[in-house]
Amino acid sequence: MLKVFLSNLPADWTHRNEGGDTWSPYDVLGHLIHGEKTDWIVRAEIILNDSANKEFKSFDRYAQFRNSKRKKLEQLLSEFEKLRAENLSKLKAMNISTADLSRKGIHPQLGIVTLKQLLSTWVTHDLTHIAQISRVMAKQYKDEVGPWVEYIGILNK
Amino acid sequence: MLKVFLSNLPADWTHRNEGGDTWSPYDVLGHLIHGEKTDWIVRAEIILNDSANKEFKSFDRYAQFRNSKRKKLEQLLSEFEKLRAENLSKLKAMNISTADLSRKGIHPQLGIVTLKQLLSTWVTHDLTHIAQISRVMAKQYKDEVGPWVEYIGILNK
Repeated sequence: MLKVFLSNLPADWTHRNEGGDTWSPYDVLGHLIHGEKTDWIVRAEIILNDSANKEFKSFDRYAQFRNSKRKKLEQLLSEFEKLRAENLSKLKAMNISTADLSRKGIHPQLGIVTLKQLLSTWVTHDLTHIAQISRVMAKQYKDEVGPWVEYIGILNK
Repeated sequence: MLKVFLSNLPADWTHRNEGGDTWSPYDVLGHLIHGEKTDWIVRAEIILNDSANKEFKSFDRYAQFRNSKRKKLEQLLSEFEKLRAENLSKLKAMNISTADLSRKGIHPQLGIVTLKQLLSTWVTHDLTHIAQISRVMAKQYKDEVGPWVEYIGILNK
């Protein structure tokens, strides 16, 4: 879906943020890629494997500022698509049962969490970042919409 | 993009709202369809045609509650896709020049607006409703994410 959403857009639309150290759509995409590499499936594997150590590593919220360097948005879109497809295959191969959903891992900040909560958060995290990308892109049109600005609540947040 | 986003999802996810008289993703889709039929291109035509009357009709923000009745989400997705494709063809055929962008119409509540502002609002309006759909869908997972709720700002709005 992100490919349909963001492909072929001008860079000055996808690289702008909401000011200060907020994230652009390009930054968000790098963050989602890092999640595919180090977060969701990796943590699901920790919960489901036979090891006694159930502690997750901390997630690096700033990894994209190193990893995306010199990459074009289109590259990131392809990278995300590939990683997500691989991870959904891995998820399917896990053959997760209802009982598995209650199995637990230890989040470095939040403490004990279940596999069900982890997978629910994966979905919700996608949605929150789609909302963010849409909002950030909408805001670049704040001046262009003229008097309509008062009808579009998101522009005033 | 909405087809990729919303197709084949369970109805109890796409038909739930944020409480009270807020809109579900299904409601938003009906609203976008009504916009394709009566708002953006219709108003662009009013601005660009030779008639002296440049006043737009009021947009009905509640039309979807009549028009979507008994329709499935998949039907609405196809209807929107078709209407949007037709409207983009019409837009292309208008061969809008830079000078045209300054031409004016009269919005029933906002007064004088330009074609440029109308077209910018069309894009921004899409984005604000994509953000809304994502937020409303994310909120249905508020309980499921467990302790992660504190990390996902959108769930607490």
